[in-house]
Amino acid sequence: MSFRKRVFEQLEPAVSGLRSARIIEYFFIGLIICNIAAIQLETVPRFYERYQRFFDNFEIFSVVIFSIEYVLRIWTITEMLRYKNPMKGRFRYIMSRSGLIDLFSILPFYLNFLPIDLRWLRIFRLFRLLRMLKIARYLSALNLIFAVIKDRREQLMVVIMFIFFLLVIIATVMFYVEGPAQPEVFSSIPATMWWGIATLTTVGYGDMVPITALGKFLAGIIAIIGVGMYALPAGILSAGISDHLNSHRTNKEKRCPHCGKDL
Amino acid sequence: MSFRKRVFEQLEPAVSGLRSARIIEYFFIGLIICNIAAIQLETVPRFYERYQRFFDNFEIFSVVIFSIEYVLRIWTITEMLRYKNPMKGRFRYIMSRSGLIDLFSILPFYLNFLPIDLRWLRIFRLFRLLRMLKIARYLSALNLIFAVIKDRREQLMVVIMFIFFLLVIIATVMFYVEGPAQPEVFSSIPATMWWGIATLTTVGYGDMVPITALGKFLAGIIAIIGVGMYALPAGILSAGISDHLNSHRTNKEKRCPHCGKDL
Amino acid sequence: MSFRKRVFEQLEPAVSGLRSARIIEYFFIGLIICNIAAIQLETVPRFYERYQRFFDNFEIFSVVIFSIEYVLRIWTITEMLRYKNPMKGRFRYIMSRSGLIDLFSILPFYLNFLPIDLRWLRIFRLFRLLRMLKIARYLSALNLIFAVIKDRREQLMVVIMFIFFLLVIIATVMFYVEGPAQPEVFSSIPATMWWGIATLTTVGYGDMVPITALGKFLAGIIAIIGVGMYALPAGILSAGISDHLNSHRTNKEKRCPHCGKDL
Amino acid sequence: MSFRKRVFEQLEPAVSGLRSARIIEYFFIGLIICNIAAIQLETVPRFYERYQRFFDNFEIFSVVIFSIEYVLRIWTITEMLRYKNPMKGRFRYIMSRSGLIDLFSILPFYLNFLPIDLRWLRIFRLFRLLRMLKIARYLSALNLIFAVIKDRREQLMVVIMFIFFLLVIIATVMFYVEGPAQPEVFSSIPATMWWGIATLTTVGYGDMVPITALGKFLAGIIAIIGVGMYALPAGILSAGISDHLNSHRTNKEKRCPHCGKDL
Repeated sequence: MSFRKRVFEQLEPAVSGLRSARIIEYFFIGLIICNIAAIQLETVPRFYERYQRFFDNFEIFSVVIFSIEYVLRIWTITEMLRYKNPMKGRFRYIMSRSGLIDLFSILPFYLNFLPIDLRWLRIFRLFRLLRMLKIARYLSALNLIFAVIKDRREQLMVVIMFIFFLLVIIATVMFYVEGPAQPEVFSSIPATMWWGIATLTTVGYGDMVPITALGKFLAGIIAIIGVGMYALPAGILSAGISDHLNSHRTNKEKRCPHCGKDL
Repeated sequence: MSFRKRVFEQLEPAVSGLRSARIIEYFFIGLIICNIAAIQLETVPRFYERYQRFFDNFEIFSVVIFSIEYVLRIWTITEMLRYKNPMKGRFRYIMSRSGLIDLFSILPFYLNFLPIDLRWLRIFRLFRLLRMLKIARYLSALNLIFAVIKDRREQLMVVIMFIFFLLVIIATVMFYVEGPAQPEVFSSIPATMWWGIATLTTVGYGDMVPITALGKFLAGIIAIIGVGMYALPAGILSAGISDHLNSHRTNKEKRCPHCGKDL
Repeated sequence: MSFRKRVFEQLEPAVSGLRSARIIEYFFIGLIICNIAAIQLETVPRFYERYQRFFDNFEIFSVVIFSIEYVLRIWTITEMLRYKNPMKGRFRYIMSRSGLIDLFSILPFYLNFLPIDLRWLRIFRLFRLLRMLKIARYLSALNLIFAVIKDRREQLMVVIMFIFFLLVIIATVMFYVEGPAQPEVFSSIPATMWWGIATLTTVGYGDMVPITALGKFLAGIIAIIGVGMYALPAGILSAGISDHLNSHRTNKEKRCPHCGKDL
Repeated sequence: MSFRKRVFEQLEPAVSGLRSARIIEYFFIGLIICNIAAIQLETVPRFYERYQRFFDNFEIFSVVIFSIEYVLRIWTITEMLRYKNPMKGRFRYIMSRSGLIDLFSILPFYLNFLPIDLRWLRIFRLFRLLRMLKIARYLSALNLIFAVIKDRREQLMVVIMFIFFLLVIIATVMFYVEGPAQPEVFSSIPATMWWGIATLTTVGYGDMVPITALGKFLAGIIAIIGVGMYALPAGILSAGISDHLNSHRTNKEKRCPHCGKDL
């Protein structure tokens, strides 16, 4: 067995089933979780000031590891049948979703050395969050939710459009009703829409509250409609989840009671 | 083919299936979305001051287009079997829901030229929102939700009546419990009802909060009842949605594909 | 037909099916709705001061009507088979739920003339709300919800107990975590329980908010548990509603496909 | 019958079915409820100052009763087949969940007499809450919920992970969007995560509210996603509850009562 194939098997426990590959997998999951924690904690001034050096070194360490992983993956990916071709296969892997996530999650570090505007750098730093998506490679369980959402995306889109429809109507009516009484707060329809979302989703921050009797009456109706609003996606996703969970079981049970054949 | 029929086919892509008619459809959907955006953005003083001229010209442009569309639709509607009669058919179309929406959504503009009170004009401006309903002509997907709500309207009405029942009881009891401690806030039963809605729907603005021990105890019970309140419409609409989605599928599947017998 | 029977038929449209009885029914529903509105509106000082006389007269008018209805019902109830016995039957009707509601909803008015403490009178005034329950006699639709709740009361009780369990644990832990930092706000476990309810039910008034890092972390977990909390009654009541709605339909469909007999 | 067996039967009404054992059971349930109430009420300074002596005596009384119960249970547990062995059986019972709860719920009292740091004592006082779990021995109904949650724990874990995923993305993006405008409020990603939880779960305390247009736009989308978030556990737990409730019924009904064949 070639050395490239051995490296490939260490990176793909799902394919090779090697114990050492599993340990490497757990190491990567741990490293990614620590990275996500670090990205968040270094924004806390108290932590960053005290542990600045640790955060910086951990970032360098992580980028080095992820870069090595990235290079090894590109080098060994030709062991996979789908990416067999040394040139075309590697290029296709680099442009695949998984490959782009790997690339962009380490890119911000290397951009530090380029003479580009600092403001842009801040936005590129957000790319570091892509490291979180690297974990999706290891967690197949999350796929259930993504599959259900993908499966019902049309119906969910209709619900979102319906909510948006409602929001436009609510915000426009409320602006003309409550605006004259509180011109500073309900200052425009887009501003009123912020209140409309907070009420329809029952978040209710309390930074904008109607004070007129008619405004409160309308707000009450909107809040009750909001209760119904929860029912629509609940119905859609509930049906989607039980369909997914039962599909296996049902396949077994779907047998005609008369002739015994599978349906 | 008559010129009138050609115009009719350009306006009804669902009937004619013409590619040019599809493009006209997309143009109208885009124009309606821009109109809704404009109606909302022109209430933001910052935008209106700077782009007043653009908003005014866009309004004139839109009304001209919608007026032409309205006139063409009335002229060509006799091509449809239902509205065949030149006089009666056209009158029935004008008085149909679709016809009235088209009329009232352009009416506010023309009312500007009439010598009527400005205050009334403000209310008529709300009619411009009806342009949003014009989009419903193109979006059949929204009909699922409307159909489900229509299908279950009796049960939903019962839930709304039940919520109203609860609200009256809650507000009356809470007024006598919390009123003496906060006479300025829980000043009357209708005022307390505003708090009741915010609590029962779990919006919780925080502009009215009980401070007595008994008041907090009752508010806690009401909030927990509110949790149950979400379950009622969720159950009704969930059942309605899955009924609608499964009705087609079930009809097909309720037959054994091997022996042809109903299951 | 005796005069008593005629009066009885006018009071019971469901039994007699008379058109004039239906009109009397609608009159009573209207009167009850006006009464509920009056009870609420007379607590608004602005209204009461201006229309005091109207409210007082309307109350006298209502009590007179309801008293006549009460006396007529007791007089004619012997026409019903269940309450046939002139003495025992009438007494049983007076002590029935419907009879007691009718009595207590007019009692506060007559207590005005007795030399009793005014404070007690205020509490008795709450009995006037019982008039709302009189309407339940006419609205059979509300019975679906009451039936579902009664049907699933054991499971709902378990959920309420579970929520109470959670609340005690949450409040106790949060008191020891957040209490030292905000001794004025999280002053005792019962006080913290108020915060716990507002968070678990996602009402979120904002009058009590944790400020320590550990407190916020715990609050976040509690809020996410609260999301799950909505699922339990939703599941129970959803199942209950669809069971009730389908029971009729299912009865028809529940036929054995082998021998064709009802199951 | 030995005296030990008689004592055992008095402690286990579910095994013996004795009436006197049922009364002892109700006494313990009552005592536990009073204990939970006392633990909470003694944190209210107003109550504790006035009734300090009562609270202290009640605690001593309760600990004495629970200690006697604990000793009797260990003494008599050998009557149970599972714990038959006098030494090993008793040790296994002491280390069982039920045995540990009994021990730790009385331990804080005895630790008072040991010369240990007072601060540790405060934490040990939390163990008194374990007395609440003693009640679970008597309430089999709560087991339904625990069973459903245990049954669906994998799917619920996936939902919690998904929520956590969303939270990290939301908090990071919102920190870079809203942080520059409100550096004191959205001061770091963990601080923003507190806002993210309050919005995603629709608690909406209102202590942190975005003020920029882009921040409000993102917050609106997050709140609408939060609506969908409620649907996932609702779907999972609904399916779990109805599975549990129907499993018994379905087994019985899946047979034609006339011809005896499975449907």
